[in-house]
Amino acid sequence: MIDAYQASSQARVNAALEPLFVAPSPEMNRLYEIMRYSVMNGGKRIRPSLAYAACEALGAPAELANGAACAVELIHAYSLVHDDLPAMDDDDLRRGQPTPHKAFDEAYAILAGDGLQSLAFSALLDPRLNSANAEISMRMVTTLALAAGPAGMVGGQAIDMNSINLKPDRQALEHMHRHKTGALIEATTHLGALASGCAETTQLMALQAYSQAIGLAFQVQDDILDIESHTAILGKRQGADIARNKLTYPMLLGLEAAKVYVLELRDQALDALISFDAAAESLRSLARYIVARRY
Amino acid sequence: MIDAYQASSQARVNAALEPLFVAPSPEMNRLYEIMRYSVMNGGKRIRPSLAYAACEALGAPAELANGAACAVELIHAYSLVHDDLPAMDDDDLRRGQPTPHKAFDEAYAILAGDGLQSLAFSALLDPRLNSANAEISMRMVTTLALAAGPAGMVGGQAIDMNSINLKPDRQALEHMHRHKTGALIEATTHLGALASGCAETTQLMALQAYSQAIGLAFQVQDDILDIESHTAILGKRQGADIARNKLTYPMLLGLEAAKVYVLELRDQALDALISFDAAAESLRSLARYIVARRY
Repeated sequence: MIDAYQASSQARVNAALEPLFVAPSPEMNRLYEIMRYSVMNGGKRIRPSLAYAACEALGAPAELANGAACAVELIHAYSLVHDDLPAMDDDDLRRGQPTPHKAFDEAYAILAGDGLQSLAFSALLDPRLNSANAEISMRMVTTLALAAGPAGMVGGQAIDMNSINLKPDRQALEHMHRHKTGALIEATTHLGALASGCAETTQLMALQAYSQAIGLAFQVQDDILDIESHTAILGKRQGADIARNKLTYPMLLGLEAAKVYVLELRDQALDALISFDAAAESLRSLARYIVARRY
Repeated sequence: MIDAYQASSQARVNAALEPLFVAPSPEMNRLYEIMRYSVMNGGKRIRPSLAYAACEALGAPAELANGAACAVELIHAYSLVHDDLPAMDDDDLRRGQPTPHKAFDEAYAILAGDGLQSLAFSALLDPRLNSANAEISMRMVTTLALAAGPAGMVGGQAIDMNSINLKPDRQALEHMHRHKTGALIEATTHLGALASGCAETTQLMALQAYSQAIGLAFQVQDDILDIESHTAILGKRQGADIARNKLTYPMLLGLEAAKVYVLELRDQALDALISFDAAAESLRSLARYIVARRY
């Protein structure tokens, strides 16, 4: 069932994203080509699925969250392009394909990432993708900017860069992940809920608790998969985190305890949705999927 | 007189920018430090001055344009940080100081640029800096995102990268500059005018014509200064464009004809303001300053 939901979310967000990659003049074809390459790459679209599911959990049709879904996926895509750069993680492979700076060149990869970030903000307010009123739209822009920026995702990346070779500390690791991946995931359900046009404060708070738990679960599961999966399944180098001597949950807690922790986080996420009705079933399924996924 | 206006605009925007560089947690100190280093560097603040002057031209106090002024300066600053990277222009010096990737490191410079772009969108809507209503604020976000993004500044940078060693063509050069520097300058006066809360369509169109002319004038004057100024005055390597074999207006038109062209553009800018009263005097002075500046 979650496979079907994921597939429909993928199709929906891909259809919404595709028109954004039409170059306005031929001299920009290459820039738009690398941006498209970085985004339309068969990604799982977990964030768009979460945005749609949050919107539906409030009883609204998923389509209302198209702007939110595109925006968070574009932010996510830009962050991967830049993270993979030689000066950063220096990765050659992403989802089984050459990373953008390998497939094109480094200067274009930097530019494409920059362009994707701007495009996220255009997409969020694009009248083809977003029909929320101006007040709600403003809250959406602020939510996205804070989550993506130095107090959110970029800040988490900065902490992560400093964390190499540091002594293991669970609180510090959690603090890093809450920024690096958690902030955008938290923003995703918030944006999806706002896009419904009928989000109440208590619902937004419940979704915040839900997304904090799955954001962390997602990261712990990533750490586990880095150890357990084969490169062919994972689409990136297996053991890459260990090779870089980065602190991970299995290193800190042990592999089995990390697996238990993931399940605890899933249950926290499900508990947070206790006051929601059947409309939140996709959100519940996504929480179960995130901790069960193999890549 | 323009010196006094510039000085007051500098002071105003610097005071508005400074609080944005307070790290929310100590682990992010270094990220915020490099962002601050990249922005609070004694820059001329021409774009903020233009935003304030456009707001004042419509009879509103300059302070209303604080969000606009900060946002465009943050976008400008991020673009310089990334343009200076080794994979891009590979510049060691900017405004007489080591570029961020030299003063810190390359990974941090990439991240700081990314963070500054997000911060621009937060600043634009920051209630401490912007009091426009939600409808106007939405137009401001869209204006900034389009001007900064792949159909604007980033697109211009991409065209510029392709233009090295290409055959001289005035139309192509103009097309590149209208994106690379023109789009953000055009957005700047538009944002400043919107921030006034009382911009009419005819006024916005006049400001568009004004800013298109000064945007191009700014670039032609930059090309002239690249030839004529000494490194110590310019704060970056003199002759850098020529060394890179980049197409410039003096190369295309000849130095003297380029100087004549700059004055024509200034007059176009002044003509565009014909229906404005004395409140637009700062805009007029800025047009005269841009073509007369020596660095």
